[in-house]
Amino acid sequence: MDIFDRLKNLIGDESRITRCEKVRAEHSKDCSSYHIGNLPDCVVFPKNVEEIKKIVEFANEGNIPLVPFGLGTSVEGQIVPTRGGISLSFQKMNNIIEVCPEDFYVKVQPGVTRVQLNEELKKYGMFFPVDPGLDATIGGMAATNASGTNAVYYGAMKHQILGLEVVLATGEVIRTGGAYLKSSSGYNLTSLFVGSEGTLGIFTELILKIHSVPRFIMTAKAVFNDVESASHAAIHVLRNNGSVCKLELLDQSTISAINRYKQTSYTELPTLFIEIMENHFTQVKEMLLLSDCCELEVEDIDEKREQLWSIRHEAAFAIKNLFPGKKLMATDVCVPLTILPVAIRNAREVMDRNDMKGSILGHVGDGNFHAVFAVAPFDQGDLERAQHVNNAIVQFALNNGGTCSGEHGIGLGKMNYLEQEHGASVFIMKKIKDMFDPKGILNPGKIFTS
Amino acid sequence: MDIFDRLKNLIGDESRITRCEKVRAEHSKDCSSYHIGNLPDCVVFPKNVEEIKKIVEFANEGNIPLVPFGLGTSVEGQIVPTRGGISLSFQKMNNIIEVCPEDFYVKVQPGVTRVQLNEELKKYGMFFPVDPGLDATIGGMAATNASGTNAVYYGAMKHQILGLEVVLATGEVIRTGGAYLKSSSGYNLTSLFVGSEGTLGIFTELILKIHSVPRFIMTAKAVFNDVESASHAAIHVLRNNGSVCKLELLDQSTISAINRYKQTSYTELPTLFIEIMENHFTQVKEMLLLSDCCELEVEDIDEKREQLWSIRHEAAFAIKNLFPGKKLMATDVCVPLTILPVAIRNAREVMDRNDMKGSILGHVGDGNFHAVFAVAPFDQGDLERAQHVNNAIVQFALNNGGTCSGEHGIGLGKMNYLEQEHGASVFIMKKIKDMFDPKGILNPGKIFTS
Repeated sequence: MDIFDRLKNLIGDESRITRCEKVRAEHSKDCSSYHIGNLPDCVVFPKNVEEIKKIVEFANEGNIPLVPFGLGTSVEGQIVPTRGGISLSFQKMNNIIEVCPEDFYVKVQPGVTRVQLNEELKKYGMFFPVDPGLDATIGGMAATNASGTNAVYYGAMKHQILGLEVVLATGEVIRTGGAYLKSSSGYNLTSLFVGSEGTLGIFTELILKIHSVPRFIMTAKAVFNDVESASHAAIHVLRNNGSVCKLELLDQSTISAINRYKQTSYTELPTLFIEIMENHFTQVKEMLLLSDCCELEVEDIDEKREQLWSIRHEAAFAIKNLFPGKKLMATDVCVPLTILPVAIRNAREVMDRNDMKGSILGHVGDGNFHAVFAVAPFDQGDLERAQHVNNAIVQFALNNGGTCSGEHGIGLGKMNYLEQEHGASVFIMKKIKDMFDPKGILNPGKIFTS
Repeated sequence: MDIFDRLKNLIGDESRITRCEKVRAEHSKDCSSYHIGNLPDCVVFPKNVEEIKKIVEFANEGNIPLVPFGLGTSVEGQIVPTRGGISLSFQKMNNIIEVCPEDFYVKVQPGVTRVQLNEELKKYGMFFPVDPGLDATIGGMAATNASGTNAVYYGAMKHQILGLEVVLATGEVIRTGGAYLKSSSGYNLTSLFVGSEGTLGIFTELILKIHSVPRFIMTAKAVFNDVESASHAAIHVLRNNGSVCKLELLDQSTISAINRYKQTSYTELPTLFIEIMENHFTQVKEMLLLSDCCELEVEDIDEKREQLWSIRHEAAFAIKNLFPGKKLMATDVCVPLTILPVAIRNAREVMDRNDMKGSILGHVGDGNFHAVFAVAPFDQGDLERAQHVNNAIVQFALNNGGTCSGEHGIGLGKMNYLEQEHGASVFIMKKIKDMFDPKGILNPGKIFTS
């Protein structure tokens, strides 16, 4: 009997196990990254923790790779079944289990998406702040410690996850943390699992902190003559205003690409997008103008605010549409804030030198930025050129006190930098991996090169 | 040659190793908790990571217990050398290594105290927000994942520590995290070490996130007819105001104790102390009055605000001074916010039933509260009665979705609850402990009963 038949016996519901070529292909790679996919032997759609427990026990016994799959929006190949095996889809585990607005938490299954969750939370005047851009499952966002534009105020997934239910490689089910906002009770296993990219255990339930929707939001678009002035202004605003929840930077070339893509005529200079949750109009305007801002627009009406943000949101599409058929490579370093302007300038120079057209999107509030460019993964020359640019950006970050991944995780794409960044710590990480998953069945071939 | 002589040879500076009875006694127990102390064989005052590396290698080779010591303000016996050995004091490792206000971080040695750090940060208009009440070393606060009054807004130590330098039991020195505000690069070892109470490694350097001092602070003292109304008002304020940075509750008996201690005449009813970092006077006043607040005082002048807070700060002293010579037992559970009023009422009833006079201080913004009472540790009857009360409070929390420790850690005092709270997770924690410290030399006898 092959894996497929044995899983059918195990789950007893044929409709939720498939080896259909099309479904396997959908579970073979990230939906838009440049990473090359690999087919799983089959895809399973479990309904509950008991089924996952059975599947994990079965996989562990048979040394079968197990790769958790949310919506496939990972960008470093986290969901590629490098060695085949079982792709474990959370499509049918998408229930919001419990909403407790007065306790500021929600319990969800891992297949719940952030858009779905926020639709529900809206009823209570609350929301879940982690926003990586695309819709994604909460389980996947937890696995990569996702963050995005709101992180400058609300932090990343690791700051918002209060507790987990996890199936270990042995099939044992454990719980970490709980539905309380604070604890100093034993080792922080929750934070160890968050960001472990499916390599230490399978999440089956998550308890998340939720927040009230701010009563007031003000969005500013501020144009500067150079990236340095924009960055200095950003730090100045951050140091003087505790209510900044988004702080994004697009460089000059990115605004040009957007103008070409959208047929618009925004001033083609480095531009900050700032969101503040208080009515600090006068103070912020003053700060920005004192910081050499040469053009300023401030909006507090939702529709107008969204118009401003749409500029920022179009940046990646502006590139993708210039190169139909190509896939995206998104670099993802994070550096100390004062290093950011020179890191961005360096990235743009490396891109120009290598004739690599792309956008630069800076989460300037936390020193994280992405250079996004189009790559043909099967064109060896194109791929190598892109990897050369990515590498130069990462090396600059690592040489200047930064990290090789701000929010996308290691996956397949950043494995080569782990030891350079963390030194001896990597051996501790590997020992932890071996302890949790001695047979190496949980998302094999990710994070560690060996 | 005994430990003392061998350490002298190792460090080569006699003045920083002592077996003086008085110094050993100072390093034998928490400065004010009820836990019974035990003398270390000697106390060492290392100056740098190289010395600590040597000491740890020596201890590991000789199976000698090693207990890190900051200022001794731990409350669950974390610094008691249960099996003798070496008390490792950080008194001479108290340098602030680097202040980078524009990058929002600071690098410190573990012996730096939070008061010392905030004195320095004041020069830059910045501060470190974690405030457990007493002065404490940053290393000790990291070891117990301390929090305190500001946690409702800024979170606990785990939210503020960006990176660590750690000496492992083998003497190997590793670095985790870094001086960047965000990362998804590999397992989150930083969070695993934070809160590990000296049992996984010795911190030798910490990178902390720092924050700008708020431009405006408003403090309110709001009196309610019962704990339930006060708790509901607290949740109401939290849900409608994102700028709440402190939210504390004292129950009726606590206000009475303070009046007797300070010869004051504050209304003897449950009282909230609220701090807000924006000028939301009208909105907050309205919310509180709509929430059945029967007496309200709001201040925004520093001196007046401090007068209000002094009431809250006197609560523990009010009890301690009633019982000269006794030590303090501080219960420390954390429950979901909506459980808090009934948990506090239950705690007060248990205390009354057992004739245990004490204060109840609730960090009502995060569901954490302390019942603080005086105990004579060597009076078996007194100790048992106190432990009975503490146990009843912990059991209520655990039965209602809470944790046995909100911010003080496990140490010696909460070991018996670890398995009840975490179930199978405890075995994972123990496996991690064995992996990091196979000989069990790092702060032995803490967190785990076996």
